Amino acid sequence: MKKLVLTGAAGRLGSYLREPLSKMCEELVSTDLAEDIGKLYPGERYVAANLESLDAMVDLLAGADMVVHFGAIGDEAPFETLLGPNFIGAYNVWEAAYRNGVRRVVYASSIHAVGMHPKTDFIGTDAPHRPDTFYGLAKCFAEDLASMYWDKRQVEAVCLRILSCAQVTNPRAVGSWLSYDDLIQLVQRAIDTPVTGFSVIYGVSNNDRAPVDNAKAAFLGYRPKDNAEQFAEAVFAEAGPLDHQDPGNMCHGGPFASVELGNSGVATMNIVDDRKKT
Amino acid sequence: MKKLVLTGAAGRLGSYLREPLSKMCEELVSTDLAEDIGKLYPGERYVAANLESLDAMVDLLAGADMVVHFGAIGDEAPFETLLGPNFIGAYNVWEAAYRNGVRRVVYASSIHAVGMHPKTDFIGTDAPHRPDTFYGLAKCFAEDLASMYWDKRQVEAVCLRILSCAQVTNPRAVGSWLSYDDLIQLVQRAIDTPVTGFSVIYGVSNNDRAPVDNAKAAFLGYRPKDNAEQFAEAVFAEAGPLDHQDPGNMCHGGPFASVELGNSGVATMNIVDDRKKT
Amino acid sequence: MKKLVLTGAAGRLGSYLREPLSKMCEELVSTDLAEDIGKLYPGERYVAANLESLDAMVDLLAGADMVVHFGAIGDEAPFETLLGPNFIGAYNVWEAAYRNGVRRVVYASSIHAVGMHPKTDFIGTDAPHRPDTFYGLAKCFAEDLASMYWDKRQVEAVCLRILSCAQVTNPRAVGSWLSYDDLIQLVQRAIDTPVTGFSVIYGVSNNDRAPVDNAKAAFLGYRPKDNAEQFAEAVFAEAGPLDHQDPGNMCHGGPFASVELGNSGVATMNIVDDRKKT
Amino acid sequence: MKKLVLTGAAGRLGSYLREPLSKMCEELVSTDLAEDIGKLYPGERYVAANLESLDAMVDLLAGADMVVHFGAIGDEAPFETLLGPNFIGAYNVWEAAYRNGVRRVVYASSIHAVGMHPKTDFIGTDAPHRPDTFYGLAKCFAEDLASMYWDKRQVEAVCLRILSCAQVTNPRAVGSWLSYDDLIQLVQRAIDTPVTGFSVIYGVSNNDRAPVDNAKAAFLGYRPKDNAEQFAEAVFAEAGPLDHQDPGNMCHGGPFASVELGNSGVATMNIVDDRKKT
Amino acid sequence: MKKLVLTGAAGRLGSYLREPLSKMCEELVSTDLAEDIGKLYPGERYVAANLESLDAMVDLLAGADMVVHFGAIGDEAPFETLLGPNFIGAYNVWEAAYRNGVRRVVYASSIHAVGMHPKTDFIGTDAPHRPDTFYGLAKCFAEDLASMYWDKRQVEAVCLRILSCAQVTNPRAVGSWLSYDDLIQLVQRAIDTPVTGFSVIYGVSNNDRAPVDNAKAAFLGYRPKDNAEQFAEAVFAEAGPLDHQDPGNMCHGGPFASVELGNSGVATMNIVDDRKKT
Amino acid sequence: MKKLVLTGAAGRLGSYLREPLSKMCEELVSTDLAEDIGKLYPGERYVAANLESLDAMVDLLAGADMVVHFGAIGDEAPFETLLGPNFIGAYNVWEAAYRNGVRRVVYASSIHAVGMHPKTDFIGTDAPHRPDTFYGLAKCFAEDLASMYWDKRQVEAVCLRILSCAQVTNPRAVGSWLSYDDLIQLVQRAIDTPVTGFSVIYGVSNNDRAPVDNAKAAFLGYRPKDNAEQFAEAVFAEAGPLDHQDPGNMCHGGPFASVELGNSGVATMNIVDDRKKT
Repeated sequence: MKKLVLTGAAGRLGSYLREPLSKMCEELVSTDLAEDIGKLYPGERYVAANLESLDAMVDLLAGADMVVHFGAIGDEAPFETLLGPNFIGAYNVWEAAYRNGVRRVVYASSIHAVGMHPKTDFIGTDAPHRPDTFYGLAKCFAEDLASMYWDKRQVEAVCLRILSCAQVTNPRAVGSWLSYDDLIQLVQRAIDTPVTGFSVIYGVSNNDRAPVDNAKAAFLGYRPKDNAEQFAEAVFAEAGPLDHQDPGNMCHGGPFASVELGNSGVATMNIVDDRKKT
Repeated sequence: MKKLVLTGAAGRLGSYLREPLSKMCEELVSTDLAEDIGKLYPGERYVAANLESLDAMVDLLAGADMVVHFGAIGDEAPFETLLGPNFIGAYNVWEAAYRNGVRRVVYASSIHAVGMHPKTDFIGTDAPHRPDTFYGLAKCFAEDLASMYWDKRQVEAVCLRILSCAQVTNPRAVGSWLSYDDLIQLVQRAIDTPVTGFSVIYGVSNNDRAPVDNAKAAFLGYRPKDNAEQFAEAVFAEAGPLDHQDPGNMCHGGPFASVELGNSGVATMNIVDDRKKT
Repeated sequence: MKKLVLTGAAGRLGSYLREPLSKMCEELVSTDLAEDIGKLYPGERYVAANLESLDAMVDLLAGADMVVHFGAIGDEAPFETLLGPNFIGAYNVWEAAYRNGVRRVVYASSIHAVGMHPKTDFIGTDAPHRPDTFYGLAKCFAEDLASMYWDKRQVEAVCLRILSCAQVTNPRAVGSWLSYDDLIQLVQRAIDTPVTGFSVIYGVSNNDRAPVDNAKAAFLGYRPKDNAEQFAEAVFAEAGPLDHQDPGNMCHGGPFASVELGNSGVATMNIVDDRKKT
Repeated sequence: MKKLVLTGAAGRLGSYLREPLSKMCEELVSTDLAEDIGKLYPGERYVAANLESLDAMVDLLAGADMVVHFGAIGDEAPFETLLGPNFIGAYNVWEAAYRNGVRRVVYASSIHAVGMHPKTDFIGTDAPHRPDTFYGLAKCFAEDLASMYWDKRQVEAVCLRILSCAQVTNPRAVGSWLSYDDLIQLVQRAIDTPVTGFSVIYGVSNNDRAPVDNAKAAFLGYRPKDNAEQFAEAVFAEAGPLDHQDPGNMCHGGPFASVELGNSGVATMNIVDDRKKT
Repeated sequence: MKKLVLTGAAGRLGSYLREPLSKMCEELVSTDLAEDIGKLYPGERYVAANLESLDAMVDLLAGADMVVHFGAIGDEAPFETLLGPNFIGAYNVWEAAYRNGVRRVVYASSIHAVGMHPKTDFIGTDAPHRPDTFYGLAKCFAEDLASMYWDKRQVEAVCLRILSCAQVTNPRAVGSWLSYDDLIQLVQRAIDTPVTGFSVIYGVSNNDRAPVDNAKAAFLGYRPKDNAEQFAEAVFAEAGPLDHQDPGNMCHGGPFASVELGNSGVATMNIVDDRKKT
Repeated sequence: MKKLVLTGAAGRLGSYLREPLSKMCEELVSTDLAEDIGKLYPGERYVAANLESLDAMVDLLAGADMVVHFGAIGDEAPFETLLGPNFIGAYNVWEAAYRNGVRRVVYASSIHAVGMHPKTDFIGTDAPHRPDTFYGLAKCFAEDLASMYWDKRQVEAVCLRILSCAQVTNPRAVGSWLSYDDLIQLVQRAIDTPVTGFSVIYGVSNNDRAPVDNAKAAFLGYRPKDNAEQFAEAVFAEAGPLDHQDPGNMCHGGPFASVELGNSGVATMNIVDDRKKT
């Protein structure tokens, strides 16, 4: 692959992807709002750009083979706040991909697109949308947009419905954890699979208690290696009994399922950044 | 019912609903962009308002029991054009409903939310979204929003996926026709059903060739009476053989399935207004 | 058919079945706890008997071709109260049928075997059991018993999951009504269908709002004629808005879904006997 | 339509289709093995031809718009007997259709392609093949062939799985009857539907006890009018109780399900030709 | 966890659970009919009690967090024999749990609740009940009861449908084996999973030939380690060819599927107790 | 097992099965068209025979316990070419098995029976037939024949739908590879499973990207060990980007899905024989 574009490159997950992606292509163009993201990896180039500008996206994607779209506000927020980066930004990326003949968009979708389904339902990748927040609603929007750009304009898409890619500090995460290594494998397979059409896959590690079903995405060959069961005993002991009438405990979306719509701070309150320091 | 609000009251379908809705409540508040919509029905009041203004919507819905939301651009158009009325407008209606304690939103969704499914698939109301246009994408957005406002805020919704409510002038319409009388029944049942939660139902008449499945919405009791089969012979004869490699002939969305994204004029090109004149 | 046995013949529904059943066989043996049920129809014989006695049931079913089992306590009650007539009684009927080589049991099951399913789920006859009361639990028990006696002992069974066979006096009944005439047709088809194996079918009229799916029982040929939609407007007007957080309004079981387990009086509180007097 | 070809025109069903088909096209070419089929309808031409000859079929279909393929041995027989007319004959028809650019094959398939499914399964048009005889196996073969010619060569096909098109003289037929009028409607809809791709539909009347599910073929608009329930009482009375351990009574295929493979005479033993004489 | 109650503590499986359960709580109360069960594990207390006494169960469960209910007759027997311990006993346990505010019942259900399904059907945890014996019927009863106590009274339940927890001495067990270690893991996960609602899971080891599907119970995180394939060659060689017309060989229930109803001795005839002696 | 028959013993796959099969029985009778297949394994006997002769097959299978039927033309070819060996040959094998009381046929079916399904559909073993070639059509024919011989004549069958058993030299094979060792395991399990009825299973290794679902055949216990992921990087790099509008890249059948019907040479063009030389 010649040119790969990564949006959200300064974000928590995006910054972790920069190095592995830089090894999969001749040129990695990383982009985010920040002026600068410091030291670059071999083959990497950084371009500050705003997702809300279609022109900027069209410029950025010129000549790209694929785009890995992780740029967005990564938390629940009022609709008006998410409208620009999460909704319009997604449109801009796909439209720019189409105009440039980019083959495929690999998209950081989220479990929160289907977060109100009860956890006792082993939902597949074709479960109807059931967003738990405006944040999740934006993921639904982008997935539907992706479906349409494939059906109408032959832009491929792989939507990665990430569960929770952060340290395992609460009972839900024992099932929903996506390790950084498995995230990287997931993105790699979304890129190297020769033909994907429009596909959806859950981003979750090989946890004993993984609560979602990737069967229909089997051809992508994602085989996670890590397992959060190692954290179960300690985390359960600390948490104590949970209220089984709280949607936050009963639904796939976890705390997003019980938070008041538009209340930011949900995603961040439990995140402990445990990436290995290089 | 005390107060009912109808958006898009000056539109083709909206204007047809004014009279029957006025009979189902003490006060019908009709709204649209136009300054004036002429003669009013008994119990009807007209308020010009812009869907793109959340404040306007909040004012409009004060004290309402339900809102029938038909206001939007009724055709394919560039995303930027639809963003205000079709996307943000839908958000404004639901948010205003929530803030005012409105019980239910009855929403004019569309077959174009699932228009890329092949016509040989007898799709149910839980078929995954598969929009055929930006117009259809806006319907997907509003349906997902409706699902979330029910799950999180207990605002009920009935999404009416209308197939084609216009004169039967082409082969597709022999299956997809929704007569005006059946449209009225459909809206009435969406209103009078005591409890609906979040529901989706196809708006299609009792055509012999109706290509979609309303089984899962059976409790709404919609039983259409009209049948487009009366037009079949003439319409088929005039149309001649169809290209079975054209998505416009093979998919539920009809011409929207083959049109280039963003090209306005699709909806209107075949519409002949055949409403009975009062 | 030579001999047919009807249990629960003095009950509300059972007494209504006596005349039509007497016309389908040479001898109808009606049975119930009462000493006497008054005037008999031609070909009918009455035998007082207690379902809780296996010996009595074995005697009663000697030489019978089929048994129509409607005998049981027809309301929610403490488990201890239902154990004899509803649980043990069902066992006695099937065991007696088996010992006498009776071909088939037609059983008055109930929607309450699946009453906790949400009404927005269009449940089929193979929906998992989800009883709403001890009364419903007894129906589950008898259905499972019936399945086993067919699989192991070739006693056929048709389980009629009756929704609500009583006057339409509340919003739920607009969907759930089973008219007396349709009840009779249902029982007749359960009897005259040549081969049934173990089958389940919902007992509901041809209501516009009938909320359950009999597709899988199509071969039984039950085609109800009555439609409770005639009562909708008046009943809805009187009831006013319903609480959509009350399981009694959201679940198939209606008031049984919200009543405290074991509290008798649920079934009877809304029943108005509107049978045509002969 | 200019030219339509009917195979099996001298057969029981084929001969009944000649007149209605002759009215749907400018030229109907009827064909069968017989030298002559007597008086022709306006616009009809008869050509004796053998299905087993590919050349003959290629000649026959030259310039045809569609072919209605009813030619075959209409009964169970040894595999060696059916190989020519039912297997090779079907291949020849599709191959000839392809070589001549014929748009669509309307094919007389049969319930016997799925005849071993239990009658208590309400099988849809996508039930897996489960043939009951070599006769049924030939229908499976032709359906699969039809699927392939659509996928690979864009020859459309509508496979009509006829249940039993003959007088109602046995209990099974009360559910499985296809009246002649409904047969004609079925063939007409298979022809006049603008786009069909590869489709399967059951050929059964609107019997109360129709045991199969045409939902997935809804877009074809087949709405049968006749109902064998009128014959139920007399037929059931004469038949008496049926053995519920006999596959012939328990399976969709009826007597074909219990006959020894290869034993001819099954289809004809109960057929009473009750067509209205013209 | 403070207090855990184990019923059936003197039974074959129950006695094996005592030690591991005693380590999961401060106090384990073991109970059974026997006067005494010998040496106790640290933290364990033994109370002789009869499941058939509701009062005894209410006393026993006072202050308990959870109850592991393994007490019952462990074999097929006449209905009258099972009525007390297996049916009424189950009711008593759930009712006592409810009255004491116990959070969850972990229940030893059985494959025999669905034993008449053919083994070639890969049944999931939502397969309809299809009991093979009165023993299995009691399991159906308790599962339905459990569902109801969750829906109506918020008592959680995990129903463990154990296949065959005994030495592998026959061909069926090569697929159906549940090792003692895997049984312990299964019970532990049923206890430590923070929120379960009403759940069903099959109790089977990681056998190559495990014939049932636990996908829908994935969130419980049960990952068995043992595999009966090691025994396959020897067991198959000794058994020789099996009769494929015998339900005992074709159905999930094994010998229970072919035994005459009510005949005790089925379960025990093949059981070789191979627990590791401590 | 006393006697086992292997057809197609001189073919690429058949010749690889001879040794392992010879160890599973007292006598292995290998057969093919060739006069001679060289050195025999202990217990093996070779008999030249033509599948197209029913008499020859009846003689060959006399006294056999099972037959492993791998004989056929192993590539796409005109229908007329395949008719004898692939269609009639299959009939002859099953008919000969029936006449000789042979218990089971293990059949080399193929992914090409369902090759036109899109690769993004994770098809199960009950996916409807959708052949991609005449070669695949013959597999459909034999599977349906197998189903019928089980339902009507109690001849068991295991149909192995092999994906691609050859060296991994193209992107599709990274998902579809069946290693020789896994092929052997697959055949062994098809033979040693005590009771199979009529079963279908995909023949594919434990590839990360295996695109088909064997869940419904779980009871057969096939657990492949090899994984083509080791070849992915090199194969993908060499292949470069693939055309996502080519059915050969989008469908399970691979090149068979895009080849013109009847064009031989498809199977062989990519086959590199990489069996370990003994």
